[in-house]
Amino acid sequence: MKYNPEQPLAITYFDAIPAFLSGSDTPRDYLERCLETIAEKEPTVKAWVTLNEEGARQAANEATQRYKAGKPLSAIDGMPLGIKDLIHTKDMPTKMGSPLYENNHTYTDSSVVQALRSAGAVVLGKTVTTEMGMSHPGPTTNPYDSSRTPGGSSSGSAAAVGAGMVPAAIGTQVIGSIIRPAGYCANYALKPTYGAINRGERQGYSQSHHGVHAGSLEDMWQVAIEVAMRAGGDPGHPGLFGTAINPRAERPTRLIVMQGEAWSRVDPLARTGFEKLVDAIRASGVQVLWGDDNPLIRAFEESVADCMALCRDICGYELRWVLENLVERHPNDLSDSLTGRLELSRKMTVNDYRALLGQRDNMQRRHAALAGLGDALISLSSLGPAPKMGDATGSDPGIDHTTGSPIMNAPSSALWAPTVTQPLLAVNGMPVGIQLLGQLHTDERLVRLAAWLRDNVTPVSVH
Amino acid sequence: MKYNPEQPLAITYFDAIPAFLSGSDTPRDYLERCLETIAEKEPTVKAWVTLNEEGARQAANEATQRYKAGKPLSAIDGMPLGIKDLIHTKDMPTKMGSPLYENNHTYTDSSVVQALRSAGAVVLGKTVTTEMGMSHPGPTTNPYDSSRTPGGSSSGSAAAVGAGMVPAAIGTQVIGSIIRPAGYCANYALKPTYGAINRGERQGYSQSHHGVHAGSLEDMWQVAIEVAMRAGGDPGHPGLFGTAINPRAERPTRLIVMQGEAWSRVDPLARTGFEKLVDAIRASGVQVLWGDDNPLIRAFEESVADCMALCRDICGYELRWVLENLVERHPNDLSDSLTGRLELSRKMTVNDYRALLGQRDNMQRRHAALAGLGDALISLSSLGPAPKMGDATGSDPGIDHTTGSPIMNAPSSALWAPTVTQPLLAVNGMPVGIQLLGQLHTDERLVRLAAWLRDNVTPVSVH
Repeated sequence: MKYNPEQPLAITYFDAIPAFLSGSDTPRDYLERCLETIAEKEPTVKAWVTLNEEGARQAANEATQRYKAGKPLSAIDGMPLGIKDLIHTKDMPTKMGSPLYENNHTYTDSSVVQALRSAGAVVLGKTVTTEMGMSHPGPTTNPYDSSRTPGGSSSGSAAAVGAGMVPAAIGTQVIGSIIRPAGYCANYALKPTYGAINRGERQGYSQSHHGVHAGSLEDMWQVAIEVAMRAGGDPGHPGLFGTAINPRAERPTRLIVMQGEAWSRVDPLARTGFEKLVDAIRASGVQVLWGDDNPLIRAFEESVADCMALCRDICGYELRWVLENLVERHPNDLSDSLTGRLELSRKMTVNDYRALLGQRDNMQRRHAALAGLGDALISLSSLGPAPKMGDATGSDPGIDHTTGSPIMNAPSSALWAPTVTQPLLAVNGMPVGIQLLGQLHTDERLVRLAAWLRDNVTPVSVH
Repeated sequence: MKYNPEQPLAITYFDAIPAFLSGSDTPRDYLERCLETIAEKEPTVKAWVTLNEEGARQAANEATQRYKAGKPLSAIDGMPLGIKDLIHTKDMPTKMGSPLYENNHTYTDSSVVQALRSAGAVVLGKTVTTEMGMSHPGPTTNPYDSSRTPGGSSSGSAAAVGAGMVPAAIGTQVIGSIIRPAGYCANYALKPTYGAINRGERQGYSQSHHGVHAGSLEDMWQVAIEVAMRAGGDPGHPGLFGTAINPRAERPTRLIVMQGEAWSRVDPLARTGFEKLVDAIRASGVQVLWGDDNPLIRAFEESVADCMALCRDICGYELRWVLENLVERHPNDLSDSLTGRLELSRKMTVNDYRALLGQRDNMQRRHAALAGLGDALISLSSLGPAPKMGDATGSDPGIDHTTGSPIMNAPSSALWAPTVTQPLLAVNGMPVGIQLLGQLHTDERLVRLAAWLRDNVTPVSVH
């Protein structure tokens, strides 16, 4: 199954709502179509850890009744969703991609799940994550080529959406775990401003985010804003700003290309495709700036030149006490990649960590300095199309990523910047994402800009 | 047992270390003396939920060996401590002051507990907390008068230290849960700068803090800094600054009296005592400023004039999703005070919360504006001595506090300001704390100023 940007596998929900209201379709029927796709593709894609079909059917029936009565609870009432299996759900275990959590029944809903249910959404199941959201992969395959990775750590969320099993799914990103797999699987996805969507029990990283994978920009935004209105942001954060109505498209005046630290490692065809896309954007009358065009851009690029190692070390230090507990209880049940990370972080002192926070703060200031220069940063969402399963990239500082390298995503996490990826590129029939990064709290505007690109720039296919 | 500032019940550890090194005393013997005091007083004080005597004896034996070898792990090696029963310990359940958590075995150590053990400290047991750290009281009584409350929510930590059962204990504060009970029980206590001591699994509030109760300023600081060096701060925070050596006393030049929103409700005798203390401080050559002395102080006082209600609403909103889970699972097992809080927070929108964050930010800026005006704020740590058990103060905005009113402490939490309380006042034979509040990250300097007050100002007794 080659990726054709004109005919994606992913499905949409927002455009089914008129039929729900008129009675010619129902959320229950929509769910049954999702379950049929799952029955057909799951043996290959392996996106799901747990499915609660019975609970989903009941929730879909209730949504169906609400539409019949002309009283849906929200713009996502009845929408079937997958939840990354790091996030607590009262009706399903949370297995964290690790045998250590095989029977981890929390009997509680995380804030985001609680908000989804209260908006009427149908929590269909838990989607595969890599081991504890890090490098060690789960069984999921790429819906466009089962010999390739779906990316990680939100592997199942990206693959389920990419395969058209559900219109949306919840993912999480600490370094590159939403934007990268979303790009590999031809999703739209939002990694919001840091703190914008309440992370509930998952507050342990200073740069982790809950975000949304979807088959359309519309569903992506509706899920994000309906959740954020109900769950709020993280403690001390003002939460996601924006309207409950889908943002209209807005033409950017200037975009700034972000190359990041690994531009020289970008797949040559993906680079050609990106340059063609930039030409097309320019041809639409949008100015596009590169690093050489302005010393502020160059200063920004320099500030993120070591971003991947910075993310690895900040997150390693923050996770240390959790891993120490796991290693003590289960000395033989963690992957080598996880114990390797613990070894690295054990060498760090609080002063090392403070220095990294200062370095990250500098990146964020260099990014903020670009606010007047361009409407957003634009870049590739990955080094290229999804690599073959088991091909470790190896060359990221200190980490093997068997789910592909997150090196193009590290800035979006360290900058706390809202980031949207969209499937505007195909390389040898595999999807490659294009990401836009905005200033803090401009999530809604970023969606407007992304909508304009979607509506005005023809996706590029390169071979 | 009347409180006499010259003869407190609390015990010290730092001054026993020379004897451990010379062999004339051992941490094991020190522990046994603690256990004797517990055996004697626990039937009345009821400070402990769980004691791990066997584990403590083993840890104390190991510390004894290290001192014998002249190689203690840290300045708190062998120190017996209590851990507030909201914080996870691998060897004891974490009951959260609620029957819902009676069998809550987490088998993991929170970051602070991990750090204590790695510094050689002896984790003796879990201390009583109010229900989930809020208003509903546990069984603990005040070590100076068993008909009175020890304060809360760190009831057991404050009482165990006040009764001389252990030299130090870990507490937590969201509104007034360290400084108030510490004051009621004649503890020294540090509520550090927000984020300065890693809260591990307890990251759910934007103004909660882990802190230290102790029988001396020395032990208080040693525990705080040894923990913070090992556990670091919260994710994204630089952690507690300061030296591993006890700070030397430093004379303040100017102190600013903080009256707060409830000065008119202060117990008249406590007020008299405070004014006498201020006179003594002035007589030592330290300038003391009141609100009328400077418009910046008045602007600060105005900014905190609604602080108690602000804290209640911010924390209520942040806790909402947790309480919704509990109410759904256990509709009849939460206290009225807890369900009342949930009712209040259900009415809040994300915009209400954003407005409160703005109000809190304004308080913090008005406080920061005082940095050049005085070395610290000084105030009473409570409205007066510990009230009788069951006497709800009733008049705090929307909350009954059967463990005494936290209204004098709300600013220290909302400001994120480092705060030290010390037992410099006795009112009718009951202890009343005096608190100093500093600018962010000046925790160590605050301890220096507190040491100077302790060394140069005679405690005041009023009747």
